[in-house]
Amino acid sequence: MIPLFLQKIFLLTLDNYKSVFLKYLDKKIRAKEPANLYEPITYILNLGGKRLRPILTLMTCEAFGGKLEDALDAALAVEIFHNFSLVHDDIMDEAPVRRGKATVHKKWDINTGILSGDAMMILAYQFFESYEPTKFRELARLFSKTALEVCEGQQYDIDFETRNDVTIPEYLKMIEYKTAVLVAAALKMGAIVAGTSEKDAQLIYDYGINLGIAFQLQDDYLDVFADADFGKQKAGDIIENKKTWLYLKSLELSLGNDRSLLEELYENKTIDDESKIDKVVSLFNKYKIPNLIKTEIAKYTKDAYQAISSANIDYKAKKSFIDLGMFLMNRTV
Amino acid sequence: MIPLFLQKIFLLTLDNYKSVFLKYLDKKIRAKEPANLYEPITYILNLGGKRLRPILTLMTCEAFGGKLEDALDAALAVEIFHNFSLVHDDIMDEAPVRRGKATVHKKWDINTGILSGDAMMILAYQFFESYEPTKFRELARLFSKTALEVCEGQQYDIDFETRNDVTIPEYLKMIEYKTAVLVAAALKMGAIVAGTSEKDAQLIYDYGINLGIAFQLQDDYLDVFADADFGKQKAGDIIENKKTWLYLKSLELSLGNDRSLLEELYENKTIDDESKIDKVVSLFNKYKIPNLIKTEIAKYTKDAYQAISSANIDYKAKKSFIDLGMFLMNRTV
Repeated sequence: MIPLFLQKIFLLTLDNYKSVFLKYLDKKIRAKEPANLYEPITYILNLGGKRLRPILTLMTCEAFGGKLEDALDAALAVEIFHNFSLVHDDIMDEAPVRRGKATVHKKWDINTGILSGDAMMILAYQFFESYEPTKFRELARLFSKTALEVCEGQQYDIDFETRNDVTIPEYLKMIEYKTAVLVAAALKMGAIVAGTSEKDAQLIYDYGINLGIAFQLQDDYLDVFADADFGKQKAGDIIENKKTWLYLKSLELSLGNDRSLLEELYENKTIDDESKIDKVVSLFNKYKIPNLIKTEIAKYTKDAYQAISSANIDYKAKKSFIDLGMFLMNRTV
Repeated sequence: MIPLFLQKIFLLTLDNYKSVFLKYLDKKIRAKEPANLYEPITYILNLGGKRLRPILTLMTCEAFGGKLEDALDAALAVEIFHNFSLVHDDIMDEAPVRRGKATVHKKWDINTGILSGDAMMILAYQFFESYEPTKFRELARLFSKTALEVCEGQQYDIDFETRNDVTIPEYLKMIEYKTAVLVAAALKMGAIVAGTSEKDAQLIYDYGINLGIAFQLQDDYLDVFADADFGKQKAGDIIENKKTWLYLKSLELSLGNDRSLLEELYENKTIDDESKIDKVVSLFNKYKIPNLIKTEIAKYTKDAYQAISSANIDYKAKKSFIDLGMFLMNRTV
């Protein structure tokens, strides 16, 4: 646990990256003709959000001795791609709200969401064009690999909804593809821009994969066990029958009646939310799932720190990445 | 008009490029996991079609002294992008059939169409990765510019459906973006792979833009005035109230009663197709629209030939491009 005053200093640094990024975003992303194509793009890109991924790109570039300004285009590409995936995923999930505002396909329509999303993916690639050919190819290659994995992750997520034989390794692969690879790529892009060695670029990537998986597992945990005071809908994953790590692990460990009860609860469409959550949480507790997932989270977090500690960067830079991990993993909501 | 026997020889050459391309497509595009993401991709890519764009890339590469095999990846990227745009456009147009088979979103569902389309766009970029960095950047840059223009063209096309003040220059820009730029880019990519001069690459691009616009205008003409024996639905554009060049030019030239009659016919939802077509075609004929569009088509075709004749390629290669133009423009359906 880092002391609060150090956390605050670190947050100031993150905020600094964020404001540099937002200034650049504002300069580069302007609506133009045809308005129906470009307005949804400026809309979604200005809805806010933590801007975690572009911050990671900027921070990594500096940590490896590069210039912040050189990483801005790569950071913007990553953020545009992330928002592209939100626009298309929101259509697929029929989500009406994103960050408290109407989703693009709700504010406009589905066709606008599809087409503006497509344009965003292309725009993301265009922001790599400012780099010299070798770096351009390296960045675009990493970007394409990552973007395709994100699509595969989304497909696995959709497939898992109707499958009853999802294994934990499959689930871990899904969250790795759907979430962790883009975090890892955001970090690695900063390293590529800074011109670091392949070995160090790979280490920062490994840090990102492990931290990304830890973060998503923590999300699974907090969805059910977070302090409800913080206003997040409690146990939404249980209500929506999401096959998270908690559910899959319980299924793996439970036998006989408990196992069939759990499966029944996730198929039952008439049970009221309160009693469903109560019954599922009792089962999770019976099989010590909260402790097991905490151990799993700790393992991935440790692997992340181990990767970063082997990287050829100075102590201060290493500390930033460890602080970042602490900051992301110490949230309670 | 080229004599039939020469046309046949030329078709043999086109068929030769096509079969080389199809063999490569078959080798490179294989379904993999997750199946629900990749099966729709192999499905649409194997639905057939003229394969005009990849043929253009291969042909241009050879015409500029490059090796056919070197152009295969660029050709495949172009064809994958073209099919990506068909998958997403078919969703937007709610089209149930493509090349006589069910469209992707009909055979699977809309979400599958969106996500598999996204993956296709990324796959297209990945096929440029086999080129050395400078060519990679040049190809990817042209590709991104073109892809974004195709999205803009699609948006203009959607916007025009509900606009009553579309001008002919706007219409020409729309068809340039929606159709001609990808034809031109397919040609230019062949030139880039062959390592030709920037000037010649631009000339072949200009040839493509002009030929692409001529081709689309010819499509507008044939939709209404083609010999119905050839089985194409006659005057589908009139039935669907499409604001083609024929309509826009009639509107520009007609006055008073004719003008309001034409506008009425395009808003009337109760009139039967037969009499609507009859009335609209009479108006088109009254204002000599068939002759006017033929003049326009001839102008663009001539500009295409002029561009190609300035290019620094041998007589035989020039002849191929002129034959190609003749072949594309001499169709009667």
